[in-house]
Amino acid sequence: MVASLRLPSLTSLLFPATTRYPAALRRTLCLRNRPASGFATAPSGTASPETKSEVGRLPRSDQAVTPRSQDFSAWYLDVIASAELADYGPVRGTMVIRPYGYAIWEAIQDYLNVKFKETGHSNMYFPQFIPYSFIEKEASHVEGFSPELALVTVGGGNELEEKLVVRPTSETIVNHMFTQWIHSYRDLPLMINQWANVTRWEMRTKPFIRTLEFLWQEGHTAHATPEEAEKEAKQMIEIYTRFAFEETAIPVIAGRKSKLETFAGADTTYTIEAMMGDRKALQAGTSHNLGQNFSRAFGTQFQDENGERQHVWQTSWAVSTRFVGGIIMTHGDDTGLMLPPKIAPIQVVIVPIWKKDSEKTEVLSAASSVKEVLQTAGVRVKLDETTERTAGWKFNFWEMKGVPIRIEIGPRDVSSNCVVVSRRDIPGKAGKVFGISMDPSTLVAYVKEKLDEIHSSLLEKAISFRDSNIVDVNSYEELKAAISSGKWARGPWSASDSDEQRVKEETGATIRCFPFEQTLGTKTCLMTGNPAEEVAIFAKSY
Amino acid sequence: MVASLRLPSLTSLLFPATTRYPAALRRTLCLRNRPASGFATAPSGTASPETKSEVGRLPRSDQAVTPRSQDFSAWYLDVIASAELADYGPVRGTMVIRPYGYAIWEAIQDYLNVKFKETGHSNMYFPQFIPYSFIEKEASHVEGFSPELALVTVGGGNELEEKLVVRPTSETIVNHMFTQWIHSYRDLPLMINQWANVTRWEMRTKPFIRTLEFLWQEGHTAHATPEEAEKEAKQMIEIYTRFAFEETAIPVIAGRKSKLETFAGADTTYTIEAMMGDRKALQAGTSHNLGQNFSRAFGTQFQDENGERQHVWQTSWAVSTRFVGGIIMTHGDDTGLMLPPKIAPIQVVIVPIWKKDSEKTEVLSAASSVKEVLQTAGVRVKLDETTERTAGWKFNFWEMKGVPIRIEIGPRDVSSNCVVVSRRDIPGKAGKVFGISMDPSTLVAYVKEKLDEIHSSLLEKAISFRDSNIVDVNSYEELKAAISSGKWARGPWSASDSDEQRVKEETGATIRCFPFEQTLGTKTCLMTGNPAEEVAIFAKSY
Repeated sequence: MVASLRLPSLTSLLFPATTRYPAALRRTLCLRNRPASGFATAPSGTASPETKSEVGRLPRSDQAVTPRSQDFSAWYLDVIASAELADYGPVRGTMVIRPYGYAIWEAIQDYLNVKFKETGHSNMYFPQFIPYSFIEKEASHVEGFSPELALVTVGGGNELEEKLVVRPTSETIVNHMFTQWIHSYRDLPLMINQWANVTRWEMRTKPFIRTLEFLWQEGHTAHATPEEAEKEAKQMIEIYTRFAFEETAIPVIAGRKSKLETFAGADTTYTIEAMMGDRKALQAGTSHNLGQNFSRAFGTQFQDENGERQHVWQTSWAVSTRFVGGIIMTHGDDTGLMLPPKIAPIQVVIVPIWKKDSEKTEVLSAASSVKEVLQTAGVRVKLDETTERTAGWKFNFWEMKGVPIRIEIGPRDVSSNCVVVSRRDIPGKAGKVFGISMDPSTLVAYVKEKLDEIHSSLLEKAISFRDSNIVDVNSYEELKAAISSGKWARGPWSASDSDEQRVKEETGATIRCFPFEQTLGTKTCLMTGNPAEEVAIFAKSY
Repeated sequence: MVASLRLPSLTSLLFPATTRYPAALRRTLCLRNRPASGFATAPSGTASPETKSEVGRLPRSDQAVTPRSQDFSAWYLDVIASAELADYGPVRGTMVIRPYGYAIWEAIQDYLNVKFKETGHSNMYFPQFIPYSFIEKEASHVEGFSPELALVTVGGGNELEEKLVVRPTSETIVNHMFTQWIHSYRDLPLMINQWANVTRWEMRTKPFIRTLEFLWQEGHTAHATPEEAEKEAKQMIEIYTRFAFEETAIPVIAGRKSKLETFAGADTTYTIEAMMGDRKALQAGTSHNLGQNFSRAFGTQFQDENGERQHVWQTSWAVSTRFVGGIIMTHGDDTGLMLPPKIAPIQVVIVPIWKKDSEKTEVLSAASSVKEVLQTAGVRVKLDETTERTAGWKFNFWEMKGVPIRIEIGPRDVSSNCVVVSRRDIPGKAGKVFGISMDPSTLVAYVKEKLDEIHSSLLEKAISFRDSNIVDVNSYEELKAAISSGKWARGPWSASDSDEQRVKEETGATIRCFPFEQTLGTKTCLMTGNPAEEVAIFAKSY
């Protein structure tokens, strides 16, 4: 099935140096030509100046990205610009999610939506305008969110009597409504979810990772007992964990937040923490056991089976467009984006190759059939048949866009009824297999197997990167050394909030979580020497 | 296959008068107990008082709705409350879309999303905050929208330098971005869509029909020629028209808006107009040919094949959650909601019936198999197996919720391997067929056929209602008579904008559209007696 039927020299012919990245035609309009911190530096609340750009014949993506190994932050912004994932909105800190980036979000939605419904949640929609007084009802909630609020003060030309908060999250309005809908234990559990935009007036922003407005899902549930609420909060973090591993090949570490890092208004926050390529941590999803904090603040009560009135026990949980940033920063490399197959908008790109016009028809016809075959088999496939670009240019372009598999079809392939298959995750010749039969069943099986292999391979690589960058520490000195070498520190912890605060101030690292997976044996707090029940993971984070 | 194997008396046994709507247990918390205009009367921008409610043992839906024939407006609000489609948000004019209502919106999304992608559009997402200066760039746009704007003036605790508009629609920010993305004719056409929330500070609001915030999709495209833009605008109104007929059984009339009714910023607006049960018109979707209005205001230019710079030609088009209101008001009846099968969240409800405990097991087991069979066949089915309600109560409840088909299974049905099938759209015995075999292939085929029949029947009924309520008029007197009798008036029109304005002031009716389907023959303007090229349709509207 797999045999080297083709002369490697043919493909190298396709990469004349001048077509790789024609410097003369490089466009000036590119995010990376703004200062790397540009997303954060425009003055608050003003429109950024409209950037005039040259009329170029080449799309923006005609630029090499800054190598990741050279400057991680510049690389990240380059990838987002060149792969056309997102762009800056006119208002400081806002982001336009472009079709290729939005398609990744749609894949995330498609997966989670099914899981949420399978576990008994219904989608619905709450208004985004929340009376300011609501935010003040739950004490720690207002403390956590009030510095980040966007306020509507004028509506229909008139100053409003009560200013309105543009939702930063919906616990308050959800509870206002739950109070009207919940009366008896028969109304419980009430389990809902909404897909929505939320606004937080962040000062330091970064596309996907932290933006003034972002998209997310927020689940909200109410239960009759604390045990049910706890079970729900744990179930949802488990769903997020599986999603991260199985769909995005991100080996997150799931665990519990420290008291200092718990959501404003929650009793307990569970989190999934991912290690980015620069070894910073990214909080990629959270699930909160809200206890009765909001139900007490909003009077959300039910009559139990004995006729007693009780406050409901609640949870909330969310994953946002931040996850797209996590995918970029986990798998990308010097060449650009590298997308895990299951959420890649394009899983396979077909690049037809011909030199003479006489070859064009048969090559394009074969390429179309291959596309048809894969599409019918449920593979997301694109045939790049534009004639304005060389095959070499296309190779670079689709690699930068992170498409997991490339299929090349040239005249010799057509005559031998074969194709060449290249893996994005294995650079150069090592990732290239010649002579894969075009026979539909063979080709489909091969491609699907490769997509699975790529997923596993990305996950394994990320696991080994993660594990080689977590240091077990038993003293504060060791912790400081680990953090200053850019790694994560894992060590027994039973010290105070103020000790935790001190670590943050002195090292820049925070407790990311007390992981669910704990090592056995007796533990001694790295800071105090007192007995500790758990290890915590410390890291710098986004 | 269809035989009367069951004694009708059995079912009538299930409706003891006391269980229908037990008056003593009727709950006080219900939208219809607020004034019918309550959605519009709370003071601007303030939270409505929290309504204290009894702890009832019965869900809100335990109330008969006001008969539609008695008070259309009260009926509409009752249906929305009782069927749990939506509820009032805490801020005046806002709406919470509850799971059953949201599921209808999801069905609308699922259908349109596929059509948009098939016709080459990509989903993406633009920020909702728009610098105020953007709105002012297109002269008629600012005139149309400035009275309805919600403004963010405070962010992160600080007064903003430039106030931000919460998007009422996105043409301005879209053009700001298009200007950065479009350079050459090779970048065209650019065809995108977003699913988003929008805000318009409406003074008179009504759930689904006109709310302060609503959900919609907005398509935006840019083209190299006016012909392409016109073709696109027409294509999208055609997609909406088909959607209305084929999915929602609403026989909309598609046509062109008059100049006065054209979207603020468009050259031409195409519309689909639906006749509601009270014979008012509902604008259910629009598609705008924007010409070069926004591209000139925002400098959105491209270099054509001859190297000349030109402004792009654009369209935009939208359908919103208002469509859900249109579905309710087209098909509902005195009993409540009546959902067209294709967008019904539940297409079939199974009500098991037993009297003795000894019958319960076998009836529930048969009901479960029937559910399984239908579900596997792709039918959206619910088995109502709660034991707290009588079968009669369940019949009423699911009729009020508009479920197209009810399947009843009692002990005799089990022994004869049959079920009873009732159609929501044909009341009483006439809609009830006994003795449908439980044999999977027979049952599935029968149910699917009935769902199709119900769709066709709803559509036919709506067409005949529509056509019997449109009067052809040839003079202003006839027009006035038609409008004052509550009908739509269709007549030749070539008069001035001020004549049109006069009709509005004197009759309350506006030109809904110049329908695409025009009668042949010479026409004389009903107002001026001058030659007219087209007939227009006049009606009062939502």
